[in-house]
Amino acid sequence: MNTVAICGVGLIGGSFALALRKAGFQRKIIGVSSPATVQKALALGVIDEALPLSEAAAAADLIYLSQPISQILDTLDVLETDAIVTDAGSTKAVICERARKLKRFVGGHPMAGKESRGVEHADADLFRGRPYVLTSREPQLENWIERFGARLVILDPIQHDQQVAFVSHLPQLLSTTLAALLSGKENIAGPAAADLTRLALSPYDIWRDIFSTNAEPIDAALGVFIARLEEVRAQLRSSELEAVFSQAAASARALRSK
Amino acid sequence: MNTVAICGVGLIGGSFALALRKAGFQRKIIGVSSPATVQKALALGVIDEALPLSEAAAAADLIYLSQPISQILDTLDVLETDAIVTDAGSTKAVICERARKLKRFVGGHPMAGKESRGVEHADADLFRGRPYVLTSREPQLENWIERFGARLVILDPIQHDQQVAFVSHLPQLLSTTLAALLSGKENIAGPAAADLTRLALSPYDIWRDIFSTNAEPIDAALGVFIARLEEVRAQLRSSELEAVFSQAAASARALRSK
Repeated sequence: MNTVAICGVGLIGGSFALALRKAGFQRKIIGVSSPATVQKALALGVIDEALPLSEAAAAADLIYLSQPISQILDTLDVLETDAIVTDAGSTKAVICERARKLKRFVGGHPMAGKESRGVEHADADLFRGRPYVLTSREPQLENWIERFGARLVILDPIQHDQQVAFVSHLPQLLSTTLAALLSGKENIAGPAAADLTRLALSPYDIWRDIFSTNAEPIDAALGVFIARLEEVRAQLRSSELEAVFSQAAASARALRSK
Repeated sequence: MNTVAICGVGLIGGSFALALRKAGFQRKIIGVSSPATVQKALALGVIDEALPLSEAAAAADLIYLSQPISQILDTLDVLETDAIVTDAGSTKAVICERARKLKRFVGGHPMAGKESRGVEHADADLFRGRPYVLTSREPQLENWIERFGARLVILDPIQHDQQVAFVSHLPQLLSTTLAALLSGKENIAGPAAADLTRLALSPYDIWRDIFSTNAEPIDAALGVFIARLEEVRAQLRSSELEAVFSQAAASARALRSK
């Protein structure tokens, strides 16, 4: 692999560049981003060169799309290349469908993040120990992802979107709904309320694209959750809740041991 | 105030003793607890003396009930005293009703805690900056609570129980229900799932008493939450969710500024 082009040099794209370097990649990394971002990325040494999309695509063996989902879709509409293309979007079915015209596209989703965004927070170890989903096998990509210390997971786009609806989009909507409901009740709130509403600080601009590209699986996950919560509600006065608490604690521990 | 008796010298009772000392209380603190606990509490210098309930109650001007709720109720059934009595139970209506035979009872609820329990984790600053609810005014108690650096909130028992159903019991049940639902889906879970399921690690033994003494307000809070979540579910494809996200983020920030 000689040249990598990263479209969208923010937290994820910048971290991909730094992780490549740390894993031993010594050739050229090109950034495609807004003028302000490429200036920062060049100053920080995260990228070697900044180019417009068409020139970067012509030069690259691997193109990494780490923009917001709607911009990834726009890029796919104009991208013409025989290089390996992958992305870091949080939903996969719509993106993979849009990328069908490309010869060597593999959908990707690094399940990693930080509260702070932007290339200035990029981190060579952002992916370490975290799941990294690919929608199909691609030996070169798999090799880098393993060198990053990430946990490779192969999932088809539909399965991926159904699973993230449960493990990521559902928690966000619970946190947002709870925080909105507690508005005006902050006076006697303790650590439990603070804990459950941290995700509610997330800005809507990230979520707009996720909801619009994953509405059906999210709707289904909400339906399943509401049915479970109604069961719990019916068991408030019974000892059956003890079994739910045990299962929940085991699952919460498993989530922490990954 | 000459003598304080603390029934249940765990994290909260032990912290109350240490906070009293730090706030300048120089007289005797008696502990009423299991043999193992009083031994630890004496060794740590948290209490000056250990006595059975009847002797402690006869000697004390202030009796602090910091046991689990069901034990507080048992203690109230046998306690005979003209001293000021207060408690630290997480629900208030059932406890205050049971304490009606006492002349000088004031319900209390320090909205503070730690993941670790037991007198060995007691902390003189546990209440600092946290809400401390009293169910009626009591100048001596208010004075100490203010010296602890806590935020005094006066709330009648019914109002208290309705509010904690929203800010404390509802978050717990959301976390537990979510964690149980994610059982087996831990493989690709990211930080969002970990964040929302931390509370699910709480043991059921604390919650059994809370549910049995506050089932009606919790049932009502769950009903309100489910209705809101159904609204959000119906708005997934609309831009109206942006306003919910804004309100939620403002509320989440307010919860953090307290």
